[in-house]
Amino acid sequence: MAEENVSDTKLILTISCPDGPGIVHAVSNIIVENQGNIIQSQQFGDPDTGLFFMRVELECPTGRAPIEAGMEEFAKKFDASWNLDLYGRPLRTIIMVSKEGHCVTDLLYRQRYADLPIDVVAIVGNHPDLAPVAQFYGIPFLCIPVTKDTKAAAEAELLNLVRAENIELVVLARYMQILSDSLCNELAGNVINIHHSFLPSFKGARPYAQAHDRGVKLIGATAHYVTADLDEGPIIEQDVTRVTHRESTRDLVAEGQDVERRVLAQAVRWHSEHRVLLNGTRTVVFN
Amino acid sequence: MAEENVSDTKLILTISCPDGPGIVHAVSNIIVENQGNIIQSQQFGDPDTGLFFMRVELECPTGRAPIEAGMEEFAKKFDASWNLDLYGRPLRTIIMVSKEGHCVTDLLYRQRYADLPIDVVAIVGNHPDLAPVAQFYGIPFLCIPVTKDTKAAAEAELLNLVRAENIELVVLARYMQILSDSLCNELAGNVINIHHSFLPSFKGARPYAQAHDRGVKLIGATAHYVTADLDEGPIIEQDVTRVTHRESTRDLVAEGQDVERRVLAQAVRWHSEHRVLLNGTRTVVFN
Amino acid sequence: MAEENVSDTKLILTISCPDGPGIVHAVSNIIVENQGNIIQSQQFGDPDTGLFFMRVELECPTGRAPIEAGMEEFAKKFDASWNLDLYGRPLRTIIMVSKEGHCVTDLLYRQRYADLPIDVVAIVGNHPDLAPVAQFYGIPFLCIPVTKDTKAAAEAELLNLVRAENIELVVLARYMQILSDSLCNELAGNVINIHHSFLPSFKGARPYAQAHDRGVKLIGATAHYVTADLDEGPIIEQDVTRVTHRESTRDLVAEGQDVERRVLAQAVRWHSEHRVLLNGTRTVVFN
Amino acid sequence: MAEENVSDTKLILTISCPDGPGIVHAVSNIIVENQGNIIQSQQFGDPDTGLFFMRVELECPTGRAPIEAGMEEFAKKFDASWNLDLYGRPLRTIIMVSKEGHCVTDLLYRQRYADLPIDVVAIVGNHPDLAPVAQFYGIPFLCIPVTKDTKAAAEAELLNLVRAENIELVVLARYMQILSDSLCNELAGNVINIHHSFLPSFKGARPYAQAHDRGVKLIGATAHYVTADLDEGPIIEQDVTRVTHRESTRDLVAEGQDVERRVLAQAVRWHSEHRVLLNGTRTVVFN
Repeated sequence: MAEENVSDTKLILTISCPDGPGIVHAVSNIIVENQGNIIQSQQFGDPDTGLFFMRVELECPTGRAPIEAGMEEFAKKFDASWNLDLYGRPLRTIIMVSKEGHCVTDLLYRQRYADLPIDVVAIVGNHPDLAPVAQFYGIPFLCIPVTKDTKAAAEAELLNLVRAENIELVVLARYMQILSDSLCNELAGNVINIHHSFLPSFKGARPYAQAHDRGVKLIGATAHYVTADLDEGPIIEQDVTRVTHRESTRDLVAEGQDVERRVLAQAVRWHSEHRVLLNGTRTVVFN
Repeated sequence: MAEENVSDTKLILTISCPDGPGIVHAVSNIIVENQGNIIQSQQFGDPDTGLFFMRVELECPTGRAPIEAGMEEFAKKFDASWNLDLYGRPLRTIIMVSKEGHCVTDLLYRQRYADLPIDVVAIVGNHPDLAPVAQFYGIPFLCIPVTKDTKAAAEAELLNLVRAENIELVVLARYMQILSDSLCNELAGNVINIHHSFLPSFKGARPYAQAHDRGVKLIGATAHYVTADLDEGPIIEQDVTRVTHRESTRDLVAEGQDVERRVLAQAVRWHSEHRVLLNGTRTVVFN
Repeated sequence: MAEENVSDTKLILTISCPDGPGIVHAVSNIIVENQGNIIQSQQFGDPDTGLFFMRVELECPTGRAPIEAGMEEFAKKFDASWNLDLYGRPLRTIIMVSKEGHCVTDLLYRQRYADLPIDVVAIVGNHPDLAPVAQFYGIPFLCIPVTKDTKAAAEAELLNLVRAENIELVVLARYMQILSDSLCNELAGNVINIHHSFLPSFKGARPYAQAHDRGVKLIGATAHYVTADLDEGPIIEQDVTRVTHRESTRDLVAEGQDVERRVLAQAVRWHSEHRVLLNGTRTVVFN
Repeated sequence: MAEENVSDTKLILTISCPDGPGIVHAVSNIIVENQGNIIQSQQFGDPDTGLFFMRVELECPTGRAPIEAGMEEFAKKFDASWNLDLYGRPLRTIIMVSKEGHCVTDLLYRQRYADLPIDVVAIVGNHPDLAPVAQFYGIPFLCIPVTKDTKAAAEAELLNLVRAENIELVVLARYMQILSDSLCNELAGNVINIHHSFLPSFKGARPYAQAHDRGVKLIGATAHYVTADLDEGPIIEQDVTRVTHRESTRDLVAEGQDVERRVLAQAVRWHSEHRVLLNGTRTVVFN
């Protein structure tokens, strides 16, 4: 998304709060009082968790400040979490990689040519292999190798970078290291991983080999928020592709890459457009 | 949908009107003033047509009357079309058929066992072939043959039935007659047809034969509102299925039936749940 | 498939044997010697299991007897399993049900109207609920209730029926009883089950509730051969459908039924057309 | 596909000829006489065109020469077209582009990292915009601008390149010029184009704008062989993606790009693996 398309008066507002009467009315009141117009909006109340979710795209001639002020009042009254952002503002993002380049290549292509609203501040690899891809797109590449002994230091370096650069989103684009529990907690809700299976099938290592052995007829991929509970984070998006008896494990790996990059790019887009709201261990996706 | 699940206090409200500030606020005001609670809602403003669309599921202890009164005021002020219905109330429906039974069988199965909110008052065929299916489900079957000479009389008989029985929805479930322009206009927005191709491909007769000749790799079906302009009505839903070089035209017909009935059932469900709003020659589907 | 379409000279031949040179040549030799013509054929050698699989549709003026004689010789030489059948001959089939009718209704519709080549000899239910469906299609319905105490007797009764009626295929169309190990072994390769999840996800009970809790974005169904190892039999077909945060468990059940019946019907069709060959714990599907 | 994986003894044989008895037997005879082993094979006889198609992957210790000799005899006897190639040998390929880079980027990525068996000899653009992409992959970029006046000369230059470099495949990766009839004929069967709609819907210019106006619920893309009859060439592959009322034409363009590159890459892969055989105006795809 070219920065020039971002305007001070086009905003995205997201809200989560305990369900109850008057929420939409209170929010629309704030908007109306500031001469705002709702372009599109979605609301959802989850009877299971008792939470209410709302996403509004609005045009507001006064800009964000008075809406922000109104929302602060609202949040106290309704015990709400909320976020207000400029429509289309790219999120400051780090992409983490190992050796496989299909996901990072795809994300970089999309942020350059296909309106993916992320601003990739750095690419971090635990191997140097993908430095040329970063170079092609003019993005700094940082190699932070990880061994059992250096893991704590490596994570500290990453966290420093996240803080120094005001990073809002970390994308694990086939990054083959497991983040420590403390890092997961520190960055909760802001780290998206792509898992190369249709979770919860084939958790853990070598999912395509597992899929081949089981003889499944569809393989898939899952983009999810990273939590300390490995492969159990809230799912943002999943997709599958059809396979047959003819494919070897190696073929599944190749065909699966297509699904992986598509699913990851979709999840990153929805997250960056503030379409994904956490609902316990699940997500609400206003797409 | 079993009638016993329909409650006086759970409502669906749909609105279309020229876009502008204050719409959501005005609507939410009516709801709040009646102690109502929004369960879920979607709004959409179309920059092309300048129209704003809204669908709300709400729980309102006062029942529908005061909401209705509020909406009458609203409609004047905002030049709006609107509809308020009990959530889950089945629409009074006629299904029209010729000889092929896959679509009607599917609809009847779903209204009986799978919560499809239609109340099938009668099945009308221009051939008697499907009378036994109607009988199995305990629904009156009316055979109204159509020839060039009897077409006007046949349509008059149908229209009488629609009026006498307060029919809200007519589903053409592979009904192989073309409705006259005047009937199309009379019932505009309340007649859903299933066309056995992925429109606008293969309009007109024998779409599967056309698809076979062209060598397409996917075949599809399209559910749309019927208008006087044949095969050009607003599209509600479409889907496709993959085919190969091996399928004959006859095979395509058999495989296409699966898509047809799935697409038609989906469209009927969305229409009956008040999820489909007309937007010129297109539809807004809040699914 | 109408019986009248079955001809003595149109045949389907399937073969599994250890891979090695000369197999196709030997088979085509048998066909050529009998003035046969191959209409279509597929072959596949699995490097993992070292097995070779072949399916041939052929037109042979001499009928099946001389091909059969040739194949007996072939089988000895190549240590092969093989089957020769008339193209389109419906398999003698029992459908087993409990209370949910969507799968059995679909299979019966397809065998009557959509060329599904099965001859449904009886419908067996452990509950009487679906007797009217059987009656509508003019098929005997047999109620064999199953309790812990009567399970052995009930299975014996079923097995007697299978033998007395020369049953070739047993379809578990949402039959909610687990077959005993001995029955599984007795009927191995001839019993198809539909599991209401995308296996290996959500094995065991209440898969849609599990899927809802996990927050998956696609739900699926799996048709597989029944083995003593529950939910682990060779997979024939799988498919999925997209769901969102809005669906309750009850909604998932309703939407899943559509996938279940489609996947089961597809698997039954492929099995009946001799397109599915066992390859250890996996299947080769020549579709 | 790394060249080192190409072996002298692993071959792909494809055949088209008038249908009749003895074809498979004659082919398998040639293979057996040379101690060859069939790895996998598919055959198909089209009752409409009376043509028989066959694709064989074989392992043959004698290499290709004796198989070639046998096939020459075979071709005379059976009036057959045939092709014998080393399994995995990359086709010498030119990719033609204009300004949009999503398809070419994808193809280059796949040939480098995902086993796509093409050897991209040059990228030819009628605009210079995509030269950097070519440079990144170390592939010569040739800018051949095309105006009404220079079109003949530009095509002559292209044809010279095709001949000088023994080009086997030309891929139009969103190349926005129409090839002349004579060039189409000259390169018939060796030029693959991606059309940005689900043909035959929305032929001609601005298909996404057409799709938006018509309000379709799925958009698609079509990869086809280029013929003098614009948008009417034999279809190799098609796919679709779901869209809603919310997407503007600009959104459809962005979302369609994903389908375009996937469909084009699939078609190029199948073509390069000798899986696509021409059957009049249609294709046989042994995938």
